[in-house]
Amino acid sequence: MNNFGIAIHGGAGTILKSLMTPEKEAAYQTALAQALDTGYELLEQGKTALEAVEAAIVVLEDCPLFNAGRGAVYNANGQHEMDASIMDGKTLDAGAIAAVRNLKNPIKLAIKVMEHSDHVLLIGEGAKEFADQFEISFESDAYFHDALRYEQWQEIKGTEKFQLDHSKSGKKNLGTVGAVALDQHGNLAAGTSTGGMTNKKFGRVGDSPIIGSGTYANNATCAISCTGSGEYLMRAVTAYDVSCRMAYKGLSLKDACNEAIMDRLTELGGDGGLVAIDHQGDIQMPYNSEGMYRASRNARERIIAIY
Amino acid sequence: MNNFGIAIHGGAGTILKSLMTPEKEAAYQTALAQALDTGYELLEQGKTALEAVEAAIVVLEDCPLFNAGRGAVYNANGQHEMDASIMDGKTLDAGAIAAVRNLKNPIKLAIKVMEHSDHVLLIGEGAKEFADQFEISFESDAYFHDALRYEQWQEIKGTEKFQLDHSKSGKKNLGTVGAVALDQHGNLAAGTSTGGMTNKKFGRVGDSPIIGSGTYANNATCAISCTGSGEYLMRAVTAYDVSCRMAYKGLSLKDACNEAIMDRLTELGGDGGLVAIDHQGDIQMPYNSEGMYRASRNARERIIAIY
Repeated sequence: MNNFGIAIHGGAGTILKSLMTPEKEAAYQTALAQALDTGYELLEQGKTALEAVEAAIVVLEDCPLFNAGRGAVYNANGQHEMDASIMDGKTLDAGAIAAVRNLKNPIKLAIKVMEHSDHVLLIGEGAKEFADQFEISFESDAYFHDALRYEQWQEIKGTEKFQLDHSKSGKKNLGTVGAVALDQHGNLAAGTSTGGMTNKKFGRVGDSPIIGSGTYANNATCAISCTGSGEYLMRAVTAYDVSCRMAYKGLSLKDACNEAIMDRLTELGGDGGLVAIDHQGDIQMPYNSEGMYRASRNARERIIAIY
Repeated sequence: MNNFGIAIHGGAGTILKSLMTPEKEAAYQTALAQALDTGYELLEQGKTALEAVEAAIVVLEDCPLFNAGRGAVYNANGQHEMDASIMDGKTLDAGAIAAVRNLKNPIKLAIKVMEHSDHVLLIGEGAKEFADQFEISFESDAYFHDALRYEQWQEIKGTEKFQLDHSKSGKKNLGTVGAVALDQHGNLAAGTSTGGMTNKKFGRVGDSPIIGSGTYANNATCAISCTGSGEYLMRAVTAYDVSCRMAYKGLSLKDACNEAIMDRLTELGGDGGLVAIDHQGDIQMPYNSEGMYRASRNARERIIAIY
C-alpha cells in the first residue's frame, strides 16, 4: 500500500490571523511540521500506524506551544492534570488515562494501558501506580511551568470560570493534540492528548480520554482524533459518530466528517474539529471554529495550516 | 402518549439457575419489582423519564443485592469507588461521575453534574467537592459493608485478579444497575450506576460513566443502559452503537440491539447486555451472558426475569 498517511492537530478554537504575529505563526508551523514528518517518516519505513501516532504526539507533547504534556494548562489548584487515549484500528484495542499529574508523555502511558492491562481507562493516582511498573518518565512541576499559561490561570483563578486554552484575547494559542495514521500494512490508529481546560476544577474530564468521543479507530472505517469543546464532543460521541456514518450510512469519510462536525456538533452548540484518515488513505480535517492547528502528509501532498 | 414505559437491569453475567436458591431468586425479583414499579408509577403520574430513571436507580442503589450504591463491591484497597451517568434524550444533556467514594446515591450526583455544571464527567475527590454545593447524601464506609462482598474481595485480595461481581461459584450474584424510560411527553432518558469490579485497582473506570458506552439517550432513536464486561462495551461504544444502527441504518430497536450485542459485542469477546426503549415505547433487553437481572413495564406487560 502506498496510500499510507498521517494527520495531526494541535487544537481548535478562536485562532485569528489578525491576532497572530508572523513569528508565532512560524513557530507553530515549525512544530506541526516536526511532529508530522516524524510520524510520516516512520510510516515510510514500514512502521505501524500506532508507532507513527505515538511519535507525532510525543513531539507535540514535548513542545510548550500545545496544551498537552509539557504545555499542559493550569487547573484550579495550579496543577497540570493530563488525559490521553489511543486506539488500534486493527484489534479495536484501546487505552486511556485521565487526571494524571507530572507525566512527561501521557500518550505513552495510554499505550501501556492498552498493551499491558485488561483495562481501557485508568485515572488519577491509580494510573500513576500502574505507571510505576514501566519505564514511564515523570517530570517535576517546574517542567510544566510556563509564564503565559500561568498568566492565563491567574486571570481567572478563584472564579467559577474555566476556559479552553484558546481565548479571544489572542494571547492564548495553545491546544489539545492528536494524530491519526494509516500504515503500509493497512492498519489505522488514532491518539489524543490534552491538559484540559485552564482553571478546570472538580476533577473535570473532557473528551480526549474517552474512546468514542475524543478518539476512535477501526480498520473497517476510519481513525479519528477530536479537539474542541469537550463536553459537546462527549454528548455527540463525535469520533464514533464519524465511523458509524461511514459504516451504517455508507458515507465517504468527507461526508461523514462534515455531518458530524458541521451539522451535528454545530447544532448542539459545540466548537471544534477533528483529524481523520480512512482505510483508503483519504484525509479530512474539518472544524467549525475560527481555526485549528493541523497538518497532514501522504504520497500526494503535505499540508500545514492554522486558519 | 400511552406507550410510555420503563426497563431496568441489575447486571449481567454468569447467573445460573442451578446455583440459585428459591429464596435468593425471590429476593432479586422483589427488589427488581420494587424499582420497576417505583419508576413506572412516576411515569403514570405524568412525571418525566429522567425522574423515573432516577427513582428506579435509587431503589436499586439502596438495595444491597446489586453492585451499585450500598451494594458496591470492594476495590483493591478495600474501598467502594462508584461510577454513574445519566442522559436526557430531549436535550442530549448528560452528567457522569467516576471513582467517587461514600456516595449514598451516585446517580443523584450524576444528575447534579448534568443540571448544575458545564461539564459532563467529574471524577474522584473533585467530584466530591462539587457535591458539597448540594444536598447530596454521603454514608460512612460501614454503610457499604457486606459480608458476602467482603468475602469476594478476600478471595482475590493481593492478587492481580479482578472480577465482575458475578462469579462462576454462584455465590456472587450482584450487578451494575441501570434504567431507561419513555415518558408521556415523548421524552427518553437513560441512567447507569455501578461499584465496578471486585479488587479493581489503578483507578480503573469501566463503561458505566461513559456517555456512548454505558449510557446513551436520544429522543430521535432510543435510550440505552448497558451492563457486562465494561472494557468491551467501551471499545464497542455499545450504547451509541445501538442508536447509530437505528439512525443511520434504519434498523428497528430490536434489530439494532441484536446486532450490537449478539454480533458486535460477541465478536469482540465481550459478555453483557443492555436494556433499551425507543421513541415509540418498544422495549428490548438482549444479553449474551447466562443471565441478566432485568424487568420492564408498559401498558401491555410487566416482565421480571433473570435467566
